[in-house]
Amino acid sequence: MRPELSRDQRAGRPGDAPFTERTPRVVAARHLTRRAGRDRAERFLAEGAQAVREALAWAGAGRGRVHELFATDEAAGRHPELLTAARQAGVPVSTVTERAAAGLSETVTPQGLVAVCDPVDVRLATALAGQPRLVAVLVGVSDPGNAGTVLRVADAAGADAVIFAGDAVDPHNGKCVRATTGSLFHLPVARGREVDAVFDACRAAGLRLVAADGHAETDLDAAEEFGDLVRPTAWVFGSEAHGLPGEVLAAVDEAVRVPLYGAAESLNLATAAAVCLYTSARAQRRG
Amino acid sequence: MRPELSRDQRAGRPGDAPFTERTPRVVAARHLTRRAGRDRAERFLAEGAQAVREALAWAGAGRGRVHELFATDEAAGRHPELLTAARQAGVPVSTVTERAAAGLSETVTPQGLVAVCDPVDVRLATALAGQPRLVAVLVGVSDPGNAGTVLRVADAAGADAVIFAGDAVDPHNGKCVRATTGSLFHLPVARGREVDAVFDACRAAGLRLVAADGHAETDLDAAEEFGDLVRPTAWVFGSEAHGLPGEVLAAVDEAVRVPLYGAAESLNLATAAAVCLYTSARAQRRG
Repeated sequence: MRPELSRDQRAGRPGDAPFTERTPRVVAARHLTRRAGRDRAERFLAEGAQAVREALAWAGAGRGRVHELFATDEAAGRHPELLTAARQAGVPVSTVTERAAAGLSETVTPQGLVAVCDPVDVRLATALAGQPRLVAVLVGVSDPGNAGTVLRVADAAGADAVIFAGDAVDPHNGKCVRATTGSLFHLPVARGREVDAVFDACRAAGLRLVAADGHAETDLDAAEEFGDLVRPTAWVFGSEAHGLPGEVLAAVDEAVRVPLYGAAESLNLATAAAVCLYTSARAQRRG
Repeated sequence: MRPELSRDQRAGRPGDAPFTERTPRVVAARHLTRRAGRDRAERFLAEGAQAVREALAWAGAGRGRVHELFATDEAAGRHPELLTAARQAGVPVSTVTERAAAGLSETVTPQGLVAVCDPVDVRLATALAGQPRLVAVLVGVSDPGNAGTVLRVADAAGADAVIFAGDAVDPHNGKCVRATTGSLFHLPVARGREVDAVFDACRAAGLRLVAADGHAETDLDAAEEFGDLVRPTAWVFGSEAHGLPGEVLAAVDEAVRVPLYGAAESLNLATAAAVCLYTSARAQRRG
């Protein structure tokens, strides 16, 4: 039996019928599960309690706007504090049916809580302002889970920005948002279709471009011992399947491989990025 | 149009009808997609070209046996060298239909190439023989993808063994095998249901038990600076969802957290393990 919800716990006003998958605002939000819909509306969906919490904090810091919040009764009962926080911030909150929530979800188990947000990405120059020390550049990374996990790792390692370069996944893709576990709202994210322009902007910001490449001659331990990583660094990562194309490797200042001490042929993108970014972060902190 | 295959390229003998999902040997192999079936038959399935290649190398080194190889015509055409290697090693090779191959697969896109193998796991004492320097212990890690990715990272970092402790996933689970990308066959893997017994065995092998715990007082940078990580170390990792239980944290020699320099609340299991294991590997190599 579902417990009765008090007025505050319910998402909408008492007596309001919940929005269904055919309610125009839900239909409009559903378009945001597609890249074309996001590009057209310039909005995206943040799903789940953690993402909604971080989105509200991000909006509270004046970095963007949360336009509305959809919640099922069940999710509203589990996270009354988020609904209260949204209302206090002036965000319209609406109850939706389970089926409407499922239609707004890109995950196997819909969370029942979805915020419609402004895009988080900023201009390249804005992301790289203020003398960044550590930046992650993802070149042509098309897998949303990988891209989101690297963004989360970059946040954990204290990176100043993450740049999606070339033909990369949209950072607002639902699977990517989910994989960032809130980190999407923590640090500046920029996009640049032209890899050359991204590299120029990084260099102009005083960053040395270091590519992670499994075939590089120099290994990470050597790079660290030589003191290369103490300098402000933009780590350049390629897709897990294809790595970095030759023209990108030719354009960076140095290519470095994570040493494979055992018999493994490679690391996956997220674990390789974790080792590279943390090695840089530690080197820079020790100076 | 499918090109005609020569005798060598075809998996079975010419004129043989391919095995279907109802052929008894395929039915028997299909039971190995379930843990109970693997436990009963003491065999497991290695799917895909990379896993089959590593399994044949592992068997060639006398570490276990590959009992048979199933291949679709299409996979046989793509990897004739693997079929040749299997036949030269005396492994029966049989053509199977696409549908039979799909029934042996635990992935969304069946690879069309499946080897039936002896289990890879060895006794705890065997895994820990020979003065190990770096070992990964997974306590209660039930997600097969996470467990397999950590095993791959441990292999890359040059670990001497990986131990699945407590109520953990079967390392022979299809999703786990796939996530190891061949590393399952590279280094000793042992299982121990009793965590205490695993810890005793690690200590008897001269290993210091260091738990990765997000709430630990000591961070990884401090542990490394103090020289703690130069000593032979068994890293203890818990499940992504639940971390390590209190009694496990009470039983280790030290608990260490990966520092979070940014605003991320945590790292996922595989990336945290990558940072910990590589930090140890580097510290030990530098002495």
